[in-house]
Amino acid sequence: MDSRALWDRYRDWLYDDPPSGLRVDVSRMDITERHERALAAKFVSAFAAMDALEKGAIANVDERRMVGHYWLRSPELAPTPEITGAIRYTLTRILAFADGVHQGRIRPDAGERFTDVLTIGIGGSALGPQFVADALGSGADRLRPHFLDNTDPAGMERVFTRLGPDLATTLAIVISKSGGTPETRNGMLETAAAYAKLRLALGPHAVAVTQEGSQLDRYAVEHRFLDRFPMWDWIGGRTSELSAVGLLPAAVQGIDVNAILDGAAVMDRLTRVRDVRRNPAALLALAWHVAGSGRGEKDMVILPYKDRLSLFSRYLQQLVMESLGKERDLAGNVVHQGIAVYGNKGSTDQHAYVQQLREGVPNFFATFIEVTRDRDETALEVEPGVTSGDYLSGLMQGTRRALYENGRASITITVPDVGPRSVGMLIALYERAVGYYATLVDINAYHQPGVEAGKKAAASVLDLQTRLVTALRGRGDAGATCEQLAVEAGAAGDAETAFKILEHLSGNSGRGVARAPGSTPCNAVYRWVG
Amino acid sequence: MDSRALWDRYRDWLYDDPPSGLRVDVSRMDITERHERALAAKFVSAFAAMDALEKGAIANVDERRMVGHYWLRSPELAPTPEITGAIRYTLTRILAFADGVHQGRIRPDAGERFTDVLTIGIGGSALGPQFVADALGSGADRLRPHFLDNTDPAGMERVFTRLGPDLATTLAIVISKSGGTPETRNGMLETAAAYAKLRLALGPHAVAVTQEGSQLDRYAVEHRFLDRFPMWDWIGGRTSELSAVGLLPAAVQGIDVNAILDGAAVMDRLTRVRDVRRNPAALLALAWHVAGSGRGEKDMVILPYKDRLSLFSRYLQQLVMESLGKERDLAGNVVHQGIAVYGNKGSTDQHAYVQQLREGVPNFFATFIEVTRDRDETALEVEPGVTSGDYLSGLMQGTRRALYENGRASITITVPDVGPRSVGMLIALYERAVGYYATLVDINAYHQPGVEAGKKAAASVLDLQTRLVTALRGRGDAGATCEQLAVEAGAAGDAETAFKILEHLSGNSGRGVARAPGSTPCNAVYRWVG
Repeated sequence: MDSRALWDRYRDWLYDDPPSGLRVDVSRMDITERHERALAAKFVSAFAAMDALEKGAIANVDERRMVGHYWLRSPELAPTPEITGAIRYTLTRILAFADGVHQGRIRPDAGERFTDVLTIGIGGSALGPQFVADALGSGADRLRPHFLDNTDPAGMERVFTRLGPDLATTLAIVISKSGGTPETRNGMLETAAAYAKLRLALGPHAVAVTQEGSQLDRYAVEHRFLDRFPMWDWIGGRTSELSAVGLLPAAVQGIDVNAILDGAAVMDRLTRVRDVRRNPAALLALAWHVAGSGRGEKDMVILPYKDRLSLFSRYLQQLVMESLGKERDLAGNVVHQGIAVYGNKGSTDQHAYVQQLREGVPNFFATFIEVTRDRDETALEVEPGVTSGDYLSGLMQGTRRALYENGRASITITVPDVGPRSVGMLIALYERAVGYYATLVDINAYHQPGVEAGKKAAASVLDLQTRLVTALRGRGDAGATCEQLAVEAGAAGDAETAFKILEHLSGNSGRGVARAPGSTPCNAVYRWVG
Repeated sequence: MDSRALWDRYRDWLYDDPPSGLRVDVSRMDITERHERALAAKFVSAFAAMDALEKGAIANVDERRMVGHYWLRSPELAPTPEITGAIRYTLTRILAFADGVHQGRIRPDAGERFTDVLTIGIGGSALGPQFVADALGSGADRLRPHFLDNTDPAGMERVFTRLGPDLATTLAIVISKSGGTPETRNGMLETAAAYAKLRLALGPHAVAVTQEGSQLDRYAVEHRFLDRFPMWDWIGGRTSELSAVGLLPAAVQGIDVNAILDGAAVMDRLTRVRDVRRNPAALLALAWHVAGSGRGEKDMVILPYKDRLSLFSRYLQQLVMESLGKERDLAGNVVHQGIAVYGNKGSTDQHAYVQQLREGVPNFFATFIEVTRDRDETALEVEPGVTSGDYLSGLMQGTRRALYENGRASITITVPDVGPRSVGMLIALYERAVGYYATLVDINAYHQPGVEAGKKAAASVLDLQTRLVTALRGRGDAGATCEQLAVEAGAAGDAETAFKILEHLSGNSGRGVARAPGSTPCNAVYRWVG
């Protein structure tokens, strides 16, 4: 298609909402009116399913739960007055808590004010807060944000080293919906140990965000946490950013959470329109479906041309892949659905892998995220009449064109700036697009049946570790190979797991296990040294 | 396969090098002896091609260059005494420069010591330095590391805000092989403007790493930079981490660069062995080939179970995708090769997208990177006998098992720790594996013919911007639409690009372009307001 025809196609397909500044351009996707017609009936179902979901249907059938993230930014839409009230009351409490922290009414034991906030969570309890903290943080932050998002002890040590003595004036926010996520529990216990080194207790510096009555909730009561905020069973982890999970860390950091909620509410209205061409989320779902033939055949490469949006793709990895990566469709057929998501930021990623995007395996479509506003300060001209921001914009246009010329499809989403409203808009846009796409391909976007297997397997590994240590201790000075110890631990068939556990224990001093190399890598002899 | 058969397969295929602590386990890839036999002849070619490359063959035929990154850690292997001498001399100069900075002999105008280092580069001049700074930095760093890796003015403002008055004691390292990369040039000019606000000049705080005689080299001379270090034409950007590009930032940060070089040299020796089973890089190349049928049909998901290795996948995105993502094979046939790379870290990513990995579209293979050593400090028991590190290890084993049960393949690489030797080993391991894989699929791993198109298109966008501004100015108070202005700027066919340029200019105050909305999004009227 030549540039005149492309200009017609651009105008024909452009979604433009002047009040919010949102544009969605799918002109460089291979969408035709034939696709629109083919999916028209599916979209009728998708709009109906979304309407039912918003009205309180049991959209997560596995767990028999409602799916209510849209109510968070329009509480009046919630199906019961109790839910409406709970959302409003919790927001009020979050804002009051943040104000108390900022004003010094809520203060640490050993200081006048909290200076830092350490958010402890993983998955849906970390990716949203990290994205928002990075996108919207500034030199004017009321508290400096930090995160523990894993059970890597060296990673935690690094965060504590960075905090140094400021840990004494750090507010810890512990987030776990179930209250039993081991990575988060471990992060909390390591944090408690770090406070203890300063002769401080965790409780007077901590807040919990969790379901009422959970293990974490009880721990918070017992250890006299400063406060507790609710996670509701009608909010899934990957759509929890606009609940207390995301709002509390952002509010104490000093971010305008009301503006985030406003942006999301605006987008919710725009994405309720029952007309694919006039609904930006439906347009995205249509484009994704066409790109991957409704089977996830193309990866989604997310390229925001803005440093502050570089964590958006990590946030979307969870939202998209956990929602859409499903073995079975709604009828129980094995379908192996999903869309793989990756990307960091442009133009940086151009220098990493545009070579492959332009010339290599054509297994993707790109999504450019364009931000109109360049910067806060007056622009510097790097050449006469040309700024750094002009380069950023020109490189985006150039890459979009270079990909198109080689038959690589792309979507371009434009937002006016990276402010709290725009961030709320982007979150809500993708939440809705994922929901629509799930209906197009007949899957449930709101459960995650595949995540238990790894957790159970991990628990069995830790259980075997305990039995191996018992077996080792029982042998006294007499060492044994992993195969012998596996037998003694009642896991004769699983010498490999025993081997890996024993290698890990003996590779760390202070764990009581010595290792003498054998004639082959796998017949080393392990001995208990206490 | 049951767990006993898997244990046999594990031992049968395990690569183990006790002195370095490296293990590579491909037992969970679908490799058979049939694959080994089928690729045996290709591997003979791959070993021969690698030998020729190391001896100084013109391996980058497009640019008629040698490919010499292996010489950086074994200078005695370089094909000429001049190159051997240049490598040794440059390393000596890097170490002396870093020592001068640490001792205060090399110091800022307005302070006793440099406190921070700001590395300005993009692509191969940023991804390696960022990975190493993050993997090996610590509370004992001699200088705090910062990066500018894009031409986003707001992103740069954020870095300058973080630095604050410490910019006065910041060493700027400007890295551009060609010396003309616009993102890096812009970063340097914005940094010069930031120093100027403190009434300081860039030159006395800056070092350049570039090719002799380049635009940047001349700028450095003219502005009296503290020093200049060479980039050689026989080093490609994506394999430049162990040249001055990576060593200088690491050395001034206080990282033991000799240990990184030693680790790489050790790995180079291990990966020269002409026996696939006894060569960890050849094993990786074989596994990649089997996974994607030699056509990149499976994405490479990189999951290091260690926070400090979370930037490794970004580093590998460039190394793998820019090397392997090629349109044509060596005979000129159109092949569209490549392997898409993504991933962050485990167990964090389990909570983001293991749902899709286990149940969804089976378009990937995983690479687990396991680190034996958990932490520096004494371990905390989060349960009796169980540490955070045991959980990390157990979650990795559990996920590996859960993926295998569902027919998803994985590689597991084990390193003893995250120290400079291990980091050097990992870099060298993948450099070599990429080189071997390229021969297996008959492509050139050392050029990047596809990156120019986007740059040229970007330059034409900036050129059109200048002409549009001229046209606008010429009209005085009389506004015009993008279509009219495109005609006047001599780009009648490209109204779309004109539209996007004018929207960008008018969306930023101070750029002289006012916008009045039209009846449709694309017929707004723009006017010069100076």
